[in-house]
Amino acid sequence: MTNNTIKVNLEQRSYDIIVGNNLGENLQNFLRNQKYSKIIILTDSNLDKLYNPYLKDLFKIDFEYVVVEAGEKTKSFGVLEKVCEEILQKNIDRSTLLVAFGGGVIGDLTGFVASILLRGIDFIQIPTSLLAMVDSSVGGKTAINAQVGKNLIGSFYQPKLVLCDLEFLKTLPVREFQNGYAEVVKYGLIFDKSFFNYLQKNYLSFFDYNQEVLTSVVKRCCEIKAHIVAVDERESSSSGLRAILNFGHTFGHVLEAYFNYSNTLLHGEAVAIGMVMASKMSCNFNMLSSEHYQEIVEHFHKTGFTIDLKKFAKDWSINQLIIHLYKDKKVENKNLVFILLSEIGKAIVKKDVDVSEFEKVVKEFL
Amino acid sequence: MTNNTIKVNLEQRSYDIIVGNNLGENLQNFLRNQKYSKIIILTDSNLDKLYNPYLKDLFKIDFEYVVVEAGEKTKSFGVLEKVCEEILQKNIDRSTLLVAFGGGVIGDLTGFVASILLRGIDFIQIPTSLLAMVDSSVGGKTAINAQVGKNLIGSFYQPKLVLCDLEFLKTLPVREFQNGYAEVVKYGLIFDKSFFNYLQKNYLSFFDYNQEVLTSVVKRCCEIKAHIVAVDERESSSSGLRAILNFGHTFGHVLEAYFNYSNTLLHGEAVAIGMVMASKMSCNFNMLSSEHYQEIVEHFHKTGFTIDLKKFAKDWSINQLIIHLYKDKKVENKNLVFILLSEIGKAIVKKDVDVSEFEKVVKEFL
Repeated sequence: MTNNTIKVNLEQRSYDIIVGNNLGENLQNFLRNQKYSKIIILTDSNLDKLYNPYLKDLFKIDFEYVVVEAGEKTKSFGVLEKVCEEILQKNIDRSTLLVAFGGGVIGDLTGFVASILLRGIDFIQIPTSLLAMVDSSVGGKTAINAQVGKNLIGSFYQPKLVLCDLEFLKTLPVREFQNGYAEVVKYGLIFDKSFFNYLQKNYLSFFDYNQEVLTSVVKRCCEIKAHIVAVDERESSSSGLRAILNFGHTFGHVLEAYFNYSNTLLHGEAVAIGMVMASKMSCNFNMLSSEHYQEIVEHFHKTGFTIDLKKFAKDWSINQLIIHLYKDKKVENKNLVFILLSEIGKAIVKKDVDVSEFEKVVKEFL
Repeated sequence: MTNNTIKVNLEQRSYDIIVGNNLGENLQNFLRNQKYSKIIILTDSNLDKLYNPYLKDLFKIDFEYVVVEAGEKTKSFGVLEKVCEEILQKNIDRSTLLVAFGGGVIGDLTGFVASILLRGIDFIQIPTSLLAMVDSSVGGKTAINAQVGKNLIGSFYQPKLVLCDLEFLKTLPVREFQNGYAEVVKYGLIFDKSFFNYLQKNYLSFFDYNQEVLTSVVKRCCEIKAHIVAVDERESSSSGLRAILNFGHTFGHVLEAYFNYSNTLLHGEAVAIGMVMASKMSCNFNMLSSEHYQEIVEHFHKTGFTIDLKKFAKDWSINQLIIHLYKDKKVENKNLVFILLSEIGKAIVKKDVDVSEFEKVVKEFL
């Protein structure tokens, strides 16, 4: 089977996403054309030793490593400074290539580092998790976390290439795999009803790592994200197309923040609940039919997601949730913005939502 | 006298530089059109209290302050983090405006902060030094310093407006004023022989703060910089036009680094020596006539610059200078690049210069 190439059209910032197996030839062709002076791979402590032979075989030329601790805490100012200084010590120049080898944390950090070293050097993404393949490695959003919230410091900076090697998915812990699946479902819900139908039919094969289904799913997600990013690269305003990628994320971020971004609720798990809550709000606004809402809830149940908030904590403070809501950066001038559905496959940016609507939905889930 | 507007043409990133006095109306027009949700002025501890009435009169609407220590040490990771967190605490959103009010340090830091907060918010420059007006506030180079060198971490990020209020120049310490003048002379040398001739005729009036001459000079510098930046925004390669703005800077940076960026030698003072050294190298390559070289040296002498290196230190280590040379980020793949002159008003990017040519010039100045 030949590998699939998806082009992200952004004029001089355009790049390819390659989805498949045995991607060495694709990478080596890219490197031959670009003639980088030095290659530095940024990865985490879980991956560096494990995948050294893999990377040697993939690159076929020399590279250096910068290794950071695994986990969300790595997206901090402290690590950013350490990594920048360590890379600068290696005598880089403007034709040095950075490589993000890891999940979303590594991708977000590496992209940000690449964007600020010598005022910007090239980088490529080799995502190793489903979440990173279908979401964070494509589109050029890079960031670290601030004390007041996640991803508040960063840049829009596109990679030069994204290599999605599906082999990684087979060794991913099941919970991580499911975590990424939430973002997969999102693409169906916000943009492509037929893709959602495909998932309803094929989810068992997907969770069984069926090669053909894995390929189709990752490819379709990347196609949709590439299309959205090409239309609205910098999420120019909340009415722009890119904002719909935040479907489920306002609720999701509030839930993640409520549990202090702990393992109680992974990002995808929180976003899955968030998407169901946003769908519920869509029903409350008479935008989405209750049949479609039920279809969405059922799919998340079937694919193993826990939607019932009572299972995560006995007592919930709605006030605390509202405080987190206002901290979310998508709040513009205190008028709440939510991404809602008018049907499965069609998202709408709803502005000026009153906080009472948020409360109402939350109460329905407690 | 009406104020002068110079346009920096960069498609959707275009902006105006306004040079003159009483710029309140210009600023208020800009603010009326942009409708920012909040204005935050970043300035240093020397300026905030002194100019509070000035800023109130200039803006005519409410703003908040973030104050940092004056001096180059402020361009550090530590201050960057502190400033980002402090601004985020103020509940900003994407339509918050940052204002850089100060010299080059404040401009470089504020631009960088603006480029990474919420992945980029708008900022404007109100430079208070001659150096910042004619050089650092225009063109979108933002940065902080790394342990291995200056300005190695940053971004290309254009302001939305630059306001050059010439009143500031009249209260600038003489040494600071002269410091900026080095960059003024640079524009004549690299790009505009007739401007250099104008400076030769009018430098006494300039140093006497003659309003007409001040206006002409700052305006012409901004015009030249705006033209160069519009042609080659990101200094795309060392053969690109923007590289010529580094004339005198490779030598200059080496000298600044040699004195550990102390007050022994200010940036402009180092660059003035650097321009003379680069002119000497141009003679050594038979590119520049010795008559033109003498003209350049004389102008720096007349305007009070010290070119004789012996006056700054008795014993010089050429090896130490070479170590600093190789650390300069303009060294590409270890082949030295120098900006040289073929005549007054015309700069050329010279690649693959052997280090012995650098040594030769340095020895001629010791």
